[in-house]
Amino acid sequence: MVEEYQHLIERGLTQESIYRGQLLKLRVDTVALPNGETAQREIVEHPGAVAAVPVTEDDQVIMVRQFRYPINQITIEIPAGKLEFGEEPETALKRELAEETGLKAGKIQLLGEFYSAPGFSNEKILVYLVRELSPQVITEKTDSEEFLEPVKIPLDEALRMAADGRLRDAKTIIGLNWAKAALRE
Amino acid sequence: MVEEYQHLIERGLTQESIYRGQLLKLRVDTVALPNGETAQREIVEHPGAVAAVPVTEDDQVIMVRQFRYPINQITIEIPAGKLEFGEEPETALKRELAEETGLKAGKIQLLGEFYSAPGFSNEKILVYLVRELSPQVITEKTDSEEFLEPVKIPLDEALRMAADGRLRDAKTIIGLNWAKAALRE
Repeated sequence: MVEEYQHLIERGLTQESIYRGQLLKLRVDTVALPNGETAQREIVEHPGAVAAVPVTEDDQVIMVRQFRYPINQITIEIPAGKLEFGEEPETALKRELAEETGLKAGKIQLLGEFYSAPGFSNEKILVYLVRELSPQVITEKTDSEEFLEPVKIPLDEALRMAADGRLRDAKTIIGLNWAKAALRE
Repeated sequence: MVEEYQHLIERGLTQESIYRGQLLKLRVDTVALPNGETAQREIVEHPGAVAAVPVTEDDQVIMVRQFRYPINQITIEIPAGKLEFGEEPETALKRELAEETGLKAGKIQLLGEFYSAPGFSNEKILVYLVRELSPQVITEKTDSEEFLEPVKIPLDEALRMAADGRLRDAKTIIGLNWAKAALRE
């Protein structure tokens, strides 16, 4: 961390592990604040995730309709999934794309990465543009507890949906905007 | 929930409260999957948040530099904060803007809302464009454990930073893109 920002930095003093689940871990740390006082920070540890913006030759985006239990809503999102332990991001990307859409990508391009909620979680999502799509036979699914269906939407329409509130999750809004910029280059 | 998506919906059966903190609550629910089997879902309950894109008359964005403990990084983000219990979003917005930047907004426009991580959290962030900025005297801070400093960046440069990875949190990338679209209308 650069020296000039010492007046902003918090230092971890102790860590208490609250929960270790299938997906998440929850920790509560005591930290030393820049003014020397102490405070508690609640941290959700996440393994990280990958997301794909799959665009067909005729500029349609392949997305997935699914039920999101934490928000009690049906959403349409770009295909995505968490990293398995020790997994390379591109391996996870190919697996999730195949499982969620039945597609294989001939061309994969990293668009960028972002933190979904850095105030309380370390979740980082890598976003890829995937093109030259072809059908893929799936032999085994990693996640048998996931129910979703692919949806094909013209890229321009998907961008309007991301702007007017019909698409409402962070990775989908960011992924579509980054894909648009990359495809225009 | 519309009838046609019954084949995707999970129904909560039981809830177990794991942790109730200052900021977050963690729950583990047992759910009935669409195929009748059961699964566990880990849910981080968050009170929701507001974020502001404050743009000056000469098209500069007022952002904040801060240390984010969960990711161990100094970030530059748009001003934001969580909703206090029962608080109106615009009240929270004005409070956070004043506390984090020392500014008061003459004009407030809701740009949209999104879920930061709907796979494991219900956090919803409302994003506002705020203009006609003037200095505001702050008498009392809600959060004495927050250390940050305002940074002024030309909107075009901030948009480049959101595109090339220098700005890496979801609400900042989304807020800047939505602000750009609204200012062009």
